Amino acid sequence: MKLKRSERLIDMTQRLLTNPHTLISLTTFTELYHSAKSSISEDLAIIKKTFEQQGIGIIQTTSGAAGGVMYIPKIKKEEALDITAGFIKQLEDPARLLPGGYIYLSDLLSDPKTLRHIGRIIASAYEDTPIDVIMTVATKGVPLAQAVAEQLNKPFIIVRRDSKITEGSTVSINYVSGSSSRIEKMELSKRTLQSGSKVLIIDDFLKGGGTVNGMRSLIKEFDATAVDAVVFCEAATQEHQTDDFSSLVSLDKISTKDKIITASLGSFFTHKDFLL
Amino acid sequence: MKLKRSERLIDMTQRLLTNPHTLISLTTFTELYHSAKSSISEDLAIIKKTFEQQGIGIIQTTSGAAGGVMYIPKIKKEEALDITAGFIKQLEDPARLLPGGYIYLSDLLSDPKTLRHIGRIIASAYEDTPIDVIMTVATKGVPLAQAVAEQLNKPFIIVRRDSKITEGSTVSINYVSGSSSRIEKMELSKRTLQSGSKVLIIDDFLKGGGTVNGMRSLIKEFDATAVDAVVFCEAATQEHQTDDFSSLVSLDKISTKDKIITASLGSFFTHKDFLL
Repeated sequence: MKLKRSERLIDMTQRLLTNPHTLISLTTFTELYHSAKSSISEDLAIIKKTFEQQGIGIIQTTSGAAGGVMYIPKIKKEEALDITAGFIKQLEDPARLLPGGYIYLSDLLSDPKTLRHIGRIIASAYEDTPIDVIMTVATKGVPLAQAVAEQLNKPFIIVRRDSKITEGSTVSINYVSGSSSRIEKMELSKRTLQSGSKVLIIDDFLKGGGTVNGMRSLIKEFDATAVDAVVFCEAATQEHQTDDFSSLVSLDKISTKDKIITASLGSFFTHKDFLL
Repeated sequence: MKLKRSERLIDMTQRLLTNPHTLISLTTFTELYHSAKSSISEDLAIIKKTFEQQGIGIIQTTSGAAGGVMYIPKIKKEEALDITAGFIKQLEDPARLLPGGYIYLSDLLSDPKTLRHIGRIIASAYEDTPIDVIMTVATKGVPLAQAVAEQLNKPFIIVRRDSKITEGSTVSINYVSGSSSRIEKMELSKRTLQSGSKVLIIDDFLKGGGTVNGMRSLIKEFDATAVDAVVFCEAATQEHQTDDFSSLVSLDKISTKDKIITASLGSFFTHKDFLL
């Protein structure tokens, strides 16, 4: 069907947004809209300009036979800081205090809008980094890993602390749980991770750092490489087994007795660049 | 900043797509773009027409002081059937066979594009149904629940088979696991579900139906209502404890001996209407 420019712009915007980090050839668009290549190129120039102006992301065009157009989600640093300031405020609510210095996060990490925001912020920092797969640990890391995976258009894999029959054969490792100083086990289905893969580790909460360390060991066991580890929230109130991670939010003070939580901007924002 | 019509169309499309089932007032747009209400209304008419023509969804406009515009994701029945035919083909791969009549699904349910498709298909059927929250069980239901939650713009809650300290106090029930005829336990954090809530149950795989039954009991325990239960894949090879669910795909034959899986379109498509 032949579309008008206004209709093409709407449909192209939709196709780009729902297929991030995916190369779409110009021919796809010329055939879809029965339009000349020159018209499509003009459309893309308008979309590119608007996406950058509005802080939606980058439209990357590559020329040549294998060329095409790709939408790369980005966020403006200003917007990322604004959103994170909102998280900090929410996290400082003393009603979140749980026994043992844990913080209730389930409401935040089950809200689609919050997840989309976190996914955009984290993915923004990895536009140029080759990543094959996102790794997390069951259960609460899953929504975050999925949110990042969506923006980067990569699959995510779930490490489990308990074996499930529906995973097939698994590889398991032991690790020291930092928060309880116990030896625990985590495992991953053999078919989920290819050797040589570049893995981005994502988790919701880092207390001692044992889980992130465990995932790094597991990645080595598969002859794969950990690119980076990012957690939503870090308890800076206790010593970590590792410094090799960054956090969006840092919990600086947690007092169950005085019912006080103090939070601040995490290390992610000092380590990472945002281009828009 | 004053935008041209073409730029407005792109930005509005983006805002609508990333905020499904969310009422946006016309004033938001007139202020954002410094444009007259009449221009915005014309823009929305173009977007509405294109979204319907291209099978993206519905743009619902409500007038009056509290009025505005809302994007409701929909999928054409034809597209939904096409996508599901692809799932059926993938599921019939005998390499998916696992001991005990289980099927390996993790690769499908960790691919962002597949999840987006499933989310759109399921959410399309509930455009008019009041739903407050999506419920699933840890771990493998989580990505699906999140995908549906995203399209419906509702939070999701995760029922667990094991207690976790970071959930706070919980309510637990016992249920009969259909696949193993054992009594098992599932539990949900007390603060996650409000009484009176309307709950849509989502899960990845239904074998005996015990898990879905268990979730229904748990929902009753919270004085909430189960609206419906939808699973991605149903093992029609064995008797279910319940008929009160629908499935996208039905596994009709699973033979570990002959290495054969036969799948077909699930009951979801006979029960549900797609408007586009």
